[in-house]
Amino acid sequence: MIERHHTNARMSMIVTYPLSGQMIRLAGLVADNRSADVAGQTAEILGKIDGFLAEAGVTRAEIVSAWIWLADMATFEQMNAVWDAWVPPGHGPVRACVGAALAQPDILVEIQVQAVKAG
Amino acid sequence: MIERHHTNARMSMIVTYPLSGQMIRLAGLVADNRSADVAGQTAEILGKIDGFLAEAGVTRAEIVSAWIWLADMATFEQMNAVWDAWVPPGHGPVRACVGAALAQPDILVEIQVQAVKAG
Amino acid sequence: MIERHHTNARMSMIVTYPLSGQMIRLAGLVADNRSADVAGQTAEILGKIDGFLAEAGVTRAEIVSAWIWLADMATFEQMNAVWDAWVPPGHGPVRACVGAALAQPDILVEIQVQAVKAG
Repeated sequence: MIERHHTNARMSMIVTYPLSGQMIRLAGLVADNRSADVAGQTAEILGKIDGFLAEAGVTRAEIVSAWIWLADMATFEQMNAVWDAWVPPGHGPVRACVGAALAQPDILVEIQVQAVKAG
Repeated sequence: MIERHHTNARMSMIVTYPLSGQMIRLAGLVADNRSADVAGQTAEILGKIDGFLAEAGVTRAEIVSAWIWLADMATFEQMNAVWDAWVPPGHGPVRACVGAALAQPDILVEIQVQAVKAG
Repeated sequence: MIERHHTNARMSMIVTYPLSGQMIRLAGLVADNRSADVAGQTAEILGKIDGFLAEAGVTRAEIVSAWIWLADMATFEQMNAVWDAWVPPGHGPVRACVGAALAQPDILVEIQVQAVKAG
C-alpha cells in the first residue's frame, strides 16, 4: 500500500499511500539519558519509537515520514549512522533534518515520525 | 475516532485517527501585536487558530498535531503556560517545539496545527 | 476536492481536503548547484519538486502544505520572489518558513512539500 521511490538506506525521495486505513502520529521524542552522545541519544529515541509504534499496531517499516532536529549539525553523520542501520532496507521514509535549538542544552537530537496502517 | 495515548495537559505521545473524513491544515501563524511578550503572542496565535478551525468546522479538541517554533528557547515555559491552559483536557495533540530564527526579529513564536474532522 | 481559504500569491491560511485518494510526500529537498544564491537554489529545488510530483501523478496545484528552512532569514524575500511566481494562482498551500542550520554551509534553503491526489 505504501509506495517508496528513489529509496536508499536512509530515506526515500517520494512516499505515497492511499488515504485509507489509519494514521499514527508520534510526538517529537528526546532521550532520557542526556549523558549519552548524539549516537546514544538517537538509539534511545529510536527504541522509544519502536515501542510507541508497537502500541499502535505498526512497525518501523510503516513509517512514512520523519523530522529530525539536531542541536549541532556537525553531529549529522553520527546520528545518520544509527538511523541508517535502524531503517528497514527498502522502507526509508521521506525525511527532513535541520539544526535547531532544543528544549534543554543536553538534548542533542529530537525525532518525530508518522506511520500508516493499511486498511 | 481520534485516539490519544500517554496524554498530559500539554500533549500526547501517540495520536491515531482513521484516514477518512477531512483533514484541516493551518499555516504557521504568528501574532500581529509584536509588542506583546511570548505569552501574549502565544495567546493571540491560539485565538487565531480557534477562529480558523471554526471556519473549517472543527474545534481545538480535534487538533491532532502541532509544531511550535520559538525565537528563544528560554521562553519555553512562558509559552507552555498559555498553551497548556488552552489545550482541552485529554485532547493534547502530538507536538514538537524547537528554536528557530523567525521571519522578523519581533516575532517570538510561530505555531502550526492540523486537525481532523471525523467522517 | 482541495479547498483553500484566505489565499494569496504565496500561501493559504487554511487548506482542507477529504481523507480519500492518495497522499504524496516528498523529502526535504536541497539544490545540487551550491554555488547558486538563494534564488537560484530555490528555483532548482522547485524544479525538482515539479519532477517528483509528476512521477507521482500530481502537479504543484495539488500541493497542500510546504515547509521551508532558510540558512539565513535575511534571504526570506529573495526566496519568496521565486516561490510566489511558482505557486499557481489560487493554489497556495499552507506554509511555514523558519531559519535553521542546514546540512552543509553552502545549502541556503531546503523545501519539503506534500500533495494530495483526489480519489
